[in-house]
Amino acid sequence: MEKFTVTILGCGSALPTTRHNGSAQIVNIREKLFLIDCAEGTQVHLRRNHISLNRLQTVFISHLHGDHCFGLPGLISTQGLLGRTAPLHIYGPEDIETVFRPMLDYFCNGMQFEVVFHPVDTHQHQLIYDDRSVSIYTIPLKHRIRCCGYLFKEKPLLPHIRREAIELYNIPLWQINNIKAGADFVAEDGRRIPNAELTIAREAPRSYAYCSDTAFKPDIAPLLEDATLLYHEATFAESEAELCDKVYHSTARQAAQIAQMAHAHQLVIGHFSSRYDDETCLLEEAKSVFPNTILAHENLTLTL
Amino acid sequence: MEKFTVTILGCGSALPTTRHNGSAQIVNIREKLFLIDCAEGTQVHLRRNHISLNRLQTVFISHLHGDHCFGLPGLISTQGLLGRTAPLHIYGPEDIETVFRPMLDYFCNGMQFEVVFHPVDTHQHQLIYDDRSVSIYTIPLKHRIRCCGYLFKEKPLLPHIRREAIELYNIPLWQINNIKAGADFVAEDGRRIPNAELTIAREAPRSYAYCSDTAFKPDIAPLLEDATLLYHEATFAESEAELCDKVYHSTARQAAQIAQMAHAHQLVIGHFSSRYDDETCLLEEAKSVFPNTILAHENLTLTL
Repeated sequence: MEKFTVTILGCGSALPTTRHNGSAQIVNIREKLFLIDCAEGTQVHLRRNHISLNRLQTVFISHLHGDHCFGLPGLISTQGLLGRTAPLHIYGPEDIETVFRPMLDYFCNGMQFEVVFHPVDTHQHQLIYDDRSVSIYTIPLKHRIRCCGYLFKEKPLLPHIRREAIELYNIPLWQINNIKAGADFVAEDGRRIPNAELTIAREAPRSYAYCSDTAFKPDIAPLLEDATLLYHEATFAESEAELCDKVYHSTARQAAQIAQMAHAHQLVIGHFSSRYDDETCLLEEAKSVFPNTILAHENLTLTL
Repeated sequence: MEKFTVTILGCGSALPTTRHNGSAQIVNIREKLFLIDCAEGTQVHLRRNHISLNRLQTVFISHLHGDHCFGLPGLISTQGLLGRTAPLHIYGPEDIETVFRPMLDYFCNGMQFEVVFHPVDTHQHQLIYDDRSVSIYTIPLKHRIRCCGYLFKEKPLLPHIRREAIELYNIPLWQINNIKAGADFVAEDGRRIPNAELTIAREAPRSYAYCSDTAFKPDIAPLLEDATLLYHEATFAESEAELCDKVYHSTARQAAQIAQMAHAHQLVIGHFSSRYDDETCLLEEAKSVFPNTILAHENLTLTL
């Protein structure tokens, strides 16, 4: 299987504690690294996970609350000091450039690389990034300010060709890519060999959905259908459902309901309120609805 | 003795590492807390040292490089979330408000306290803060951008009055403050009792000097004369003296020379380059010039 992992760098909420950092995650798809959110201290948490800052190509910011983006100026400054030359692409809500460009102009003056901001419409479910390995979509969320999640959909892998078929039918090299793309093969004797006999299908493409911060929003479930892994915020337990509504966050039960409706394979909950010294109550609550749930924690790497 | 401590929250330099945080320190003078510099992550390092964020009254920023100030937006946001109402005073180079006010306007909108910026002239040695416990002065430094250190001079403590003198000469209560302030006492029989017979002198006032970041600048030594404790940056060893000059930093030997010229009682060196996995070479170098030198490290509290 090609690499597809998610590493949690921080899964706390607005008040950083000594137990949890603010939000940040690394998605590694076939050794391409994507950063989602960038709370204060993210550059150090990357180092702690032995992830080179200059391997980051693209950053996705869910919303402009400090616990999701205050690490950007430090991350970018340090990339400059480390001699980065490749552009850094940052996707986020429309104000993102207005807010951070003046900081960069002041502090990162004279750096050898460009920071390119890509404003996204947080109200739409749209394809915003596409390369040969992955397509990335926004997921509209419901928070106090403009906010969206991000859905990473792996591109299907081309099938392997059976070695023995190449020998048996004497398949020339120039035909290999056609067969991988689905073509049958016509042998020297005129016989048509069906594609299925020549190839070994690869694993189904995987997907990862990041949904934080948001109030309960069941209409996102169809967008996340069949997600291999869903990270959904679970700031509070059901006992705080009223507070949760007021501040546009989700309970652990609500996170699990989304996972259930989306037929996700696994749910990881995070963005824990600092009031919990132990999140077992959140885990139990979510598991009662969606059994395949785990708690996020710092430096946890999940393989999809 | 009244409390006077310095707690190091970070003593790394431009590249934060997993060993050292960027610059930040807490000075506690008679339970008043002053923060000097505020690198990314300072709010968490305060928590780690069980220092309540809302006990901070005043912040002093040496210069506007990220490793000395990128923690400000996060610190201020969190103070707001914790319900701070008292104003926060921030002293720093003249651009400080221009740089940070827009961030605060965007992220800290609706908070219940005021952030008051006090621009300081980094080229002057001036009194910038004064209360009943301490006088704080700028120390002009020599760096790539405007930069100053800060000198904390404890106010002299009034002497104690000898209990036995009060009884012996029948000193009335209303005379106590006059005597503490230096007056003699005229007894009922007309005898003048000299002040020295009535009082017990207190310890000499202490002082703390923070000098970071700076190239070797011997003309600051007279300003630091007799400092109880001097924190001086020592980014590199003498073997990097040329680089040091170029980037306006000091070697460990130069830091020690300043301590020696200033007749400081103790020197603590910090702001270590990330190239040193072990700063023993810097310590040995400084000690060869000024024996009473120690290395800074995170969470170290020094009592003056």
